[in-house]
Amino acid sequence: MKGLVYGGPEKIELKEIPVPKIEKPTDALVKIIKTTICGTDLGILHGKTPSCKPGTTLGHEGVGVIEDIGTGVRSFKKGDHVIISCITSDGTCEYCKKQMYSHCEDGGWILGHLIDGTQAEYVRIPHADNSLYPIPSGADEEALVMLSDILPTGFECGVLNGQVKPGDIIAIVGAGPIGIASLLTGQFYSPAEIIMIDRDENRLAVSKKFGATQTINFEKEDPIAKVTSLTGGKGVDVAIEAVGVPESFELCQSIIAPGGHIANIGVHGKSVDLHLETLWAKNITITTRLVDTVSTPMLLKTVESKRLQPAKLITHRFKLDEILDAYDTFEHAADKKALKVIISRD
Amino acid sequence: MKGLVYGGPEKIELKEIPVPKIEKPTDALVKIIKTTICGTDLGILHGKTPSCKPGTTLGHEGVGVIEDIGTGVRSFKKGDHVIISCITSDGTCEYCKKQMYSHCEDGGWILGHLIDGTQAEYVRIPHADNSLYPIPSGADEEALVMLSDILPTGFECGVLNGQVKPGDIIAIVGAGPIGIASLLTGQFYSPAEIIMIDRDENRLAVSKKFGATQTINFEKEDPIAKVTSLTGGKGVDVAIEAVGVPESFELCQSIIAPGGHIANIGVHGKSVDLHLETLWAKNITITTRLVDTVSTPMLLKTVESKRLQPAKLITHRFKLDEILDAYDTFEHAADKKALKVIISRD
Amino acid sequence: MKGLVYGGPEKIELKEIPVPKIEKPTDALVKIIKTTICGTDLGILHGKTPSCKPGTTLGHEGVGVIEDIGTGVRSFKKGDHVIISCITSDGTCEYCKKQMYSHCEDGGWILGHLIDGTQAEYVRIPHADNSLYPIPSGADEEALVMLSDILPTGFECGVLNGQVKPGDIIAIVGAGPIGIASLLTGQFYSPAEIIMIDRDENRLAVSKKFGATQTINFEKEDPIAKVTSLTGGKGVDVAIEAVGVPESFELCQSIIAPGGHIANIGVHGKSVDLHLETLWAKNITITTRLVDTVSTPMLLKTVESKRLQPAKLITHRFKLDEILDAYDTFEHAADKKALKVIISRD
Amino acid sequence: MKGLVYGGPEKIELKEIPVPKIEKPTDALVKIIKTTICGTDLGILHGKTPSCKPGTTLGHEGVGVIEDIGTGVRSFKKGDHVIISCITSDGTCEYCKKQMYSHCEDGGWILGHLIDGTQAEYVRIPHADNSLYPIPSGADEEALVMLSDILPTGFECGVLNGQVKPGDIIAIVGAGPIGIASLLTGQFYSPAEIIMIDRDENRLAVSKKFGATQTINFEKEDPIAKVTSLTGGKGVDVAIEAVGVPESFELCQSIIAPGGHIANIGVHGKSVDLHLETLWAKNITITTRLVDTVSTPMLLKTVESKRLQPAKLITHRFKLDEILDAYDTFEHAADKKALKVIISRD
Repeated sequence: MKGLVYGGPEKIELKEIPVPKIEKPTDALVKIIKTTICGTDLGILHGKTPSCKPGTTLGHEGVGVIEDIGTGVRSFKKGDHVIISCITSDGTCEYCKKQMYSHCEDGGWILGHLIDGTQAEYVRIPHADNSLYPIPSGADEEALVMLSDILPTGFECGVLNGQVKPGDIIAIVGAGPIGIASLLTGQFYSPAEIIMIDRDENRLAVSKKFGATQTINFEKEDPIAKVTSLTGGKGVDVAIEAVGVPESFELCQSIIAPGGHIANIGVHGKSVDLHLETLWAKNITITTRLVDTVSTPMLLKTVESKRLQPAKLITHRFKLDEILDAYDTFEHAADKKALKVIISRD
Repeated sequence: MKGLVYGGPEKIELKEIPVPKIEKPTDALVKIIKTTICGTDLGILHGKTPSCKPGTTLGHEGVGVIEDIGTGVRSFKKGDHVIISCITSDGTCEYCKKQMYSHCEDGGWILGHLIDGTQAEYVRIPHADNSLYPIPSGADEEALVMLSDILPTGFECGVLNGQVKPGDIIAIVGAGPIGIASLLTGQFYSPAEIIMIDRDENRLAVSKKFGATQTINFEKEDPIAKVTSLTGGKGVDVAIEAVGVPESFELCQSIIAPGGHIANIGVHGKSVDLHLETLWAKNITITTRLVDTVSTPMLLKTVESKRLQPAKLITHRFKLDEILDAYDTFEHAADKKALKVIISRD
Repeated sequence: MKGLVYGGPEKIELKEIPVPKIEKPTDALVKIIKTTICGTDLGILHGKTPSCKPGTTLGHEGVGVIEDIGTGVRSFKKGDHVIISCITSDGTCEYCKKQMYSHCEDGGWILGHLIDGTQAEYVRIPHADNSLYPIPSGADEEALVMLSDILPTGFECGVLNGQVKPGDIIAIVGAGPIGIASLLTGQFYSPAEIIMIDRDENRLAVSKKFGATQTINFEKEDPIAKVTSLTGGKGVDVAIEAVGVPESFELCQSIIAPGGHIANIGVHGKSVDLHLETLWAKNITITTRLVDTVSTPMLLKTVESKRLQPAKLITHRFKLDEILDAYDTFEHAADKKALKVIISRD
Repeated sequence: MKGLVYGGPEKIELKEIPVPKIEKPTDALVKIIKTTICGTDLGILHGKTPSCKPGTTLGHEGVGVIEDIGTGVRSFKKGDHVIISCITSDGTCEYCKKQMYSHCEDGGWILGHLIDGTQAEYVRIPHADNSLYPIPSGADEEALVMLSDILPTGFECGVLNGQVKPGDIIAIVGAGPIGIASLLTGQFYSPAEIIMIDRDENRLAVSKKFGATQTINFEKEDPIAKVTSLTGGKGVDVAIEAVGVPESFELCQSIIAPGGHIANIGVHGKSVDLHLETLWAKNITITTRLVDTVSTPMLLKTVESKRLQPAKLITHRFKLDEILDAYDTFEHAADKKALKVIISRD
């Protein structure tokens, strides 16, 4: 079969590799129908994730069809259509029992990282009972690729951790796919204002269309002054960091109101300054989180009821054969006006 | 009357000053029976709190008797014995309605800071209905001085914000009065282990007596290695920072388990490094808080039922005339084996 | 001035009465601009509330202008436009400090019940600082009459107590004004389905327009069978009782899923059967509540941001001189297709 | 092997039956070391549980050693010592993912009810990974039998659902084993007062020894008058029903304070009167629950740290051969001064 294999920093190649096999009773083999590319795939490509070894097939998102199951799999059978969670969960370890699947002792983020992933024709999914979700018949399967990672990430790490409440003023720093995922799912809780902050006019325009009530281009105006003015000097109730650089975390600290929540989503490569000299007395909560995907069943319900429309996130489509073009588009997302790209089996 | 007046950095003097008067209908005038000294009083003395102007009478803790009330005070009358909260709350502003009294728009920490305080024979208390608590008859009034600030601070900023739960392993960095307050009130929630970390053997010995299950002298052994060993490599569920320096906040980050809570209590003078390069994926919650004293009524119930014994915190006693000696003792608390000092009217 | 005075069961009269005066420093005198009628006013009229004595001016809802204030009122001044809360709160008693204003030791539901109310030209409001809310300039004042009682009641007693979550299936039994208030505010949390159950076709049609995804006329079809079918046999996550009779509470018990919440809003006149013989093992939560109006500031924010449009609830308008007609219309609400009626000063 | 087999109402017999076998890959076969008898076993015996068919081996509690495992079991191996949960959980269904194991779609309370149970030499445990808990080496295994059912039941259904908080006044109606389990675990949260209510003097005396601060023998004094007096007329914050008859649920309604929680644990055979005519306005929460045993890992930690001492519950010991005597003792628990009885393999 074909699979996109990481060859070391700056090297990826779509090449012929063996079809994976069931290795343990709890495994499932899934034929991939659609997959996508995540910012962390770019991170691997650029050598920022040394735990990912050359030779690994990339990708941790997708929808597919069950091709085979191990003897211990109880919830799925051959032919079932499934969403693949980016997080593998054994469902029984101490962390899984606390619903912290991201830290599963025999799972977590391993797909396309420590084991072969979904940017291929087939993928082996360990602990299938807890790591796959059934697709309701008649659903828009392409849209559901957004439930593998980006929507639960924006929702759990940004919205849930930020404790967005009706009437809140929230700011989202970063209007890329993750920030947009927080924007879409933040509206579940009816905040009064959602302020998107980015440097890209196109992304800010998209945010407006997707429900932002205010946008700030921080290259054109001072975001702190603007937020101060928009909030009557109080600051925001929730600041969601969706970039992963010190500057954006710094901005979150500057605009947060007393009693507010800073929810970090960004993957950071270095430490940041935490201004405890002022924040110690400000009754602030700061959270970090690798997505647990515990909200996937709930998100699926909101998709079925049309309160959430994941298809909005999809801007470009490619075949598996064109996956290098897809990487190029996603790498230059701002220029190409891309949010999420879909890669189809055929 | 006599009052301890701040005269600028390194200057305090017990001198004759006018008895305060009722200024607004919601004021009460309280005759101080007992007061105490807080770490933030030392901060003012050493010039770290420029918002406190020379000429201010210090002190924000104490018990006393109502001497006079304004026409708008409804809950108290002359002769009532009261606990003075370190936080003044008008009870009606947006923050007070959210129970964030620390950020009251017409209060907060103002006593002995922005207005004259309790280290005197009398004190004027604004918004008396919300800023004083009645003392039940027969109570040990001296012990209740600990409810003005230190016990709610240890409880709200450390234990409540840290979300201590039955069965948890918690670490408290700093075994001074604030750390001990967290140790005492943390036991309300039956954690499995409480690890106290300090450099002072006496304070660690006191902690053991007050309920710590483990102590670590970080000058004698590596606290990270010891915590790692005590927790089977997992780290602690809750780390409470009760010092206010970068090193102790750093230590909290090093010993926290995935999913854990770091609750900052310390008053910090500079920023700290936040290690988002590792913590971004660790599902951590970090909180800061200036005490709101919303828990005072509840703490009073636990004192009445003897589940909490605040008198344990009192190590030294002085008369108001000896208050400079009291400052000296509290300043050299470790040497003098002091936790909290009581200063009595006569 | 004119006021609507209760004269004993089945007797109300609009007559000339003295303008109220400030009695305590914390009182405000409010000139009524708009008021409305509540189901509990009908209850008094029909003799169901013996605690309301003949001679009492009725009404506990309205917006107005501050005409005079006591010396202890700090948040308002003559000329301010205000929403009158149906609940009077002193802000300092044990219950108020727990945000349970409904049980305020010197307040609660007293307006138009134990003291003279708002169906008059002027009303005296005790504890004005905590019992009035400022109206933002430019607001639709008529619409804000809905924030005195009905919207916080539907929201706090129904939606908050029912713990409505994104993706939930909720049923509201009773599509009168209170049920509609729950329908409007329940959408703050993006439930997947909202099933309205009533016997009145007009009200069900209105519900559909206001966001219900399903309606059931229980006189035309079996509501239990229909809910069972709509939920794949599981039942609903939240059942809101908005009627106040045993039959509707019984229905809630019959359709609730394991783990579900039954939130009672209805004013009940007799006990109901609680089916512990089946529910004991069903992990159910049942709540009751007299509205606390703690959510009023938040609701005001959602009105300002247009997420909530209270004007939708208003179907009929009268002058104060026509208030008996207004009662007649509200009494025969189903026939008259009435939800809430507005009564204007002039 | 020997097993205690239900033969229809009023018939149980210890007789020779086949040793169970692994039937599914997720099964484990456990050799029972110690088991016990539960109130629900008596319920079956007396014909109150028609879902339990004649021929079923009774018992759903116990500790044992893994004798054999299916190919899909990952967390245990032959020779491991385990606590058997009374609730079987597949860990993957919708309810299990919400931590509501009691309603597991392929489990729940099935042991000694729908499938053969633990009052035997061996038992087959389905979904072993989620339904067994490892016993730490060196633990008092007999004491841990109390973690199969009674302690999680008292804790989850009584204490957690009742939301016991520091400083609360709680009442427990029924001082049998379940009420005592709530008494022991309620102390995790440091309530100010725990009032035990029963008719049996011995049980009340035991309660006093185990931490009750007040006891009421409702046959000797009026419990409502006594609670009213003890609480200054307010009532209790939490009332835990640990009997299962209308009278005790009625009592809970009579003594609950505004804002309070009634947590039902009792297994009820008929409906009760719910006094909505008074409670509708009292801001009350009523909960029901079949134990989920989600707290078992946490309880185990509190046992290891000695904050919880389950051995206190054990009053009598028998061999498996004497199990009919054990039933007799437990049936006449009050007379025999019995709480829990232990039945040992040999």
